Amino acid sequence: MAITVVGSVAFDSIETPAGRRDRCLGGAATYFALAASFFTEVRVIAVVGEDFTSQQQDVFDRHKIDTRGIERAAGKSFFWEGSYLENLNEARTHTTELNVFGAFEPKIPNAYRDSEFLFLANIDPVLQRRVRESMPGVKLVAGDTMNYWIKDHRPALLEVLRGLDILLINDTETKMLAGNSNLVKAAGVVLQMGPRMLVVKHGEYGATAFFAHGRNEIGAKTFRAPAMPLEEVVDPTGAGDSFAGGFFGYLASQKDLTPGAFRRAMFYGSVMGSFAVERFGTDRLESLTRDEVHARFEQFRELTHLD
Amino acid sequence: MAITVVGSVAFDSIETPAGRRDRCLGGAATYFALAASFFTEVRVIAVVGEDFTSQQQDVFDRHKIDTRGIERAAGKSFFWEGSYLENLNEARTHTTELNVFGAFEPKIPNAYRDSEFLFLANIDPVLQRRVRESMPGVKLVAGDTMNYWIKDHRPALLEVLRGLDILLINDTETKMLAGNSNLVKAAGVVLQMGPRMLVVKHGEYGATAFFAHGRNEIGAKTFRAPAMPLEEVVDPTGAGDSFAGGFFGYLASQKDLTPGAFRRAMFYGSVMGSFAVERFGTDRLESLTRDEVHARFEQFRELTHLD
Repeated sequence: MAITVVGSVAFDSIETPAGRRDRCLGGAATYFALAASFFTEVRVIAVVGEDFTSQQQDVFDRHKIDTRGIERAAGKSFFWEGSYLENLNEARTHTTELNVFGAFEPKIPNAYRDSEFLFLANIDPVLQRRVRESMPGVKLVAGDTMNYWIKDHRPALLEVLRGLDILLINDTETKMLAGNSNLVKAAGVVLQMGPRMLVVKHGEYGATAFFAHGRNEIGAKTFRAPAMPLEEVVDPTGAGDSFAGGFFGYLASQKDLTPGAFRRAMFYGSVMGSFAVERFGTDRLESLTRDEVHARFEQFRELTHLD
Repeated sequence: MAITVVGSVAFDSIETPAGRRDRCLGGAATYFALAASFFTEVRVIAVVGEDFTSQQQDVFDRHKIDTRGIERAAGKSFFWEGSYLENLNEARTHTTELNVFGAFEPKIPNAYRDSEFLFLANIDPVLQRRVRESMPGVKLVAGDTMNYWIKDHRPALLEVLRGLDILLINDTETKMLAGNSNLVKAAGVVLQMGPRMLVVKHGEYGATAFFAHGRNEIGAKTFRAPAMPLEEVVDPTGAGDSFAGGFFGYLASQKDLTPGAFRRAMFYGSVMGSFAVERFGTDRLESLTRDEVHARFEQFRELTHLD
């Protein structure tokens, strides 16, 4: 089934201990869409500027990602510059230029309206909510957010959470959102805010899924997926968005959303996150094959299973 | 098969967000022995002072732990005072009084000499090595260490590592020992130092086992065991030693050290670590039953397995 994703399509300049890359294709919606495209049809809603050329368009086209919802505006695309020199787990932001993204008004093409899955990548919760409300017929809605929205835009974010089935955030964001420093208790608080599933991403330690009690059609248990121990993390940018793309893309490819499907989706999230960090920007996701995806899934099984 | 463990038996005064406990029974050998006693026969080599009374002796006796190797010396037992007020993952030490432990000369009772498993808990590597060399007939030797020995007693520690089958340390210690900030590369360096298996403990994120290449009688693959997501961590003291006790105790209970046995041992390590932190000091390990141990093992399986 098709996923519509709304979020940023951007250019990133990135410095890591492995080197530097200038103005590579980036943005949450880009990583999400590429990762999800290995599993299902993906449709993107975003805005880009005149610097978005056929070179970037080709990346989406090669993955058969529907870009009719990517608006071309006068000006430059969203630009982010950051580094991970001291700590691979946390980016230091040097520059953020919103450019055409500053006046982003998501427009949903009619061709997207039959999407059964909706992913609200990390953007202003006011926009997330507007897109959510414009697509009342979707079957499953997932979303991401970040510390900035949690701290300074809480009321708008809480409204988004009420309309979400699944929220994917990291440890720090979970504790900040809940106001509780114990992850399990914090997860319980967040699950009272709307989502019936919370996926907490732990970076190099994997991710944990928490399910709301009494609404256990998707499995009543906690589930923990590992990350792949990697010899080299070249560029952590987009790991979380690639996790979300693998996770949600796999779900959208399933006929029935059984508890087992959610567990496997967690593994596919980890799989796509583990590939994303192997090269700069979207390079590894661009070169990736379905066979490699499934082989790594089996490696994750061996990494964690007793028998 | 019997395990001999050498290490500290001590008194701890501990403050955590959950409260404060003064002079409770502690020490690495104590936690290790209690955890391992659920799986096999355990024999302790340590030294205590006159403050070690029948009350503490009873704890060992109730778990059928052999204490003939616990020497009674004039003076006071090792005493540690610490807190975890800012960060449950890292103790802040307020007081360390070595007392009788300062002149500890491990003596191995003849009755211990047929032990097939030996655990060298975190003590001076000079003493670890002496005990290791006094028990040449053991089948499997595992050990622990800490940043202090890694930084300031490296030559002595490297000699210990050459005689170890399995080393259990945490992320920071692994990176420090190897001089490499990537965990996978660091693990490779440590496995060149002697051990054929390295267990890296990640605290609330579980633990990863790395196996030396070409010596894969114990399984050639990396294996990751989760930690249990807990609503409350009352006291993290002894979690790592309890992990080691569950891990090594389970191995010692097995007729054949198959790759599957090492995987299950990782889970039992996580199981015992997860219980240890539920109450202050050794309280939870003291009240624990075998049924609870096996029930939690099954919970770990559900937490991680796809099917």
